[in-house]
Amino acid sequence: MTERIYGLHAVRAVLARDPARITQLTLAERRGDRRIAEIEALARTAGVAVRKVDAQALSKLAGEGAHQGVVAEVHPMKAWTEDDLFDALRDVPAPLVLALDGVQDPHNLGACLRTADACGALAVVVPKDRASQVNATVRKVAAGAAETTPVVAVTNLSRTLKLLKDAGLWVVGAAGEAEQLASDADLKGPLVLVMGAEGSGLRELTRKNCDFLIRLPQLGAVESLNVSVATGMLLYEATRQRSGHKL
Amino acid sequence: MTERIYGLHAVRAVLARDPARITQLTLAERRGDRRIAEIEALARTAGVAVRKVDAQALSKLAGEGAHQGVVAEVHPMKAWTEDDLFDALRDVPAPLVLALDGVQDPHNLGACLRTADACGALAVVVPKDRASQVNATVRKVAAGAAETTPVVAVTNLSRTLKLLKDAGLWVVGAAGEAEQLASDADLKGPLVLVMGAEGSGLRELTRKNCDFLIRLPQLGAVESLNVSVATGMLLYEATRQRSGHKL
Repeated sequence: MTERIYGLHAVRAVLARDPARITQLTLAERRGDRRIAEIEALARTAGVAVRKVDAQALSKLAGEGAHQGVVAEVHPMKAWTEDDLFDALRDVPAPLVLALDGVQDPHNLGACLRTADACGALAVVVPKDRASQVNATVRKVAAGAAETTPVVAVTNLSRTLKLLKDAGLWVVGAAGEAEQLASDADLKGPLVLVMGAEGSGLRELTRKNCDFLIRLPQLGAVESLNVSVATGMLLYEATRQRSGHKL
Repeated sequence: MTERIYGLHAVRAVLARDPARITQLTLAERRGDRRIAEIEALARTAGVAVRKVDAQALSKLAGEGAHQGVVAEVHPMKAWTEDDLFDALRDVPAPLVLALDGVQDPHNLGACLRTADACGALAVVVPKDRASQVNATVRKVAAGAAETTPVVAVTNLSRTLKLLKDAGLWVVGAAGEAEQLASDADLKGPLVLVMGAEGSGLRELTRKNCDFLIRLPQLGAVESLNVSVATGMLLYEATRQRSGHKL
């Protein structure tokens, strides 16, 4: 079984990290497009065969995806083990990791994966039990991000958060009753953002393992945001701060 | 047909704006809870009958909703006309309006409504044609926000944007290729945030009616964000700036 990914960045990422995952690479016949030529050159270097089709055929292949002239069939990304995660942490100066404390709905997990990818998160950590795992719905909603952003399913989330803390990351939980607004907190360093489940929020044990809690401004009538939207807002805030904007 | 809404803010909002919409108001039997007592007093003043049940019965009634001891059955909110919108604009010093240029998926419309509500938006504007309208799925995903944040379905979105501009609002479009980051733009004044449809983005005519375009940072492999997550990030940025944080 293979998955389809679209777009220059997604395909470039897989070509760079693990080209053997690509079973078919299709490019638009577009003379003079430097970025597509670059993908073609990368593919040649990596020994990946390239097929060229006209723009219409490619759009048909990509469906709703914003393909930018590039579509690839790839073997699904291998789930990361905890060891893979801690290995990868060593290579990044200020890693951003997303942890989901029991998100149930595959649509929410897919949307969180897509957002984590867009914000440059290293990986997404989920508990093995009582939480949505990566399945076909998740992959579809993630729109390719399940093929580029690794998911780490762990037996004991509290233990993993402790290990991440020992590895030098700040463990920051999202909670509606937190005193500190996200925009008043420093989210620029090595960071795990921990989001609670739909409805119930962070579990007590998870909360205890957080270095501090942050919240979003809440101006309206409805008491809580959808978890994937709240994740988007908080990852946006972290990304904004990391891009050099003042607090 | 009635809709169910939960939570102190949502119920307080309907009691304040249009108590006649409430057909049944149920409160938790909770001695000494000042906030529930306040709702009860508001209901009495408004002539709305109150029923009291134990916490378990209330949780059953509310399902997944974070009810905070308050559940109400209400007549659905009446859709606003364009005139209603322009009347309401006059009462708000720096209104925030969300316009969706052809969002198709009811899940996305529902999530946008919920977020618009949470960020204190005055209303959500959608085109009458070729776009999702408020239906049962939208109401469910909006988790009560469809009963507190009005939706204005307009015949000609470009015309409405022009009228909003004439009324003194900045019309700001979200576009991946914009030069300016949202965090570098001034989003503190009277504002319409215009979001494009899934996949296709802003239509050309809509784009022409924007005073300026803004974009989100994009660090990852996947080319675009889900429209409801992108809406969340941009409304968050506007809210952050409005809460007095520096650019």
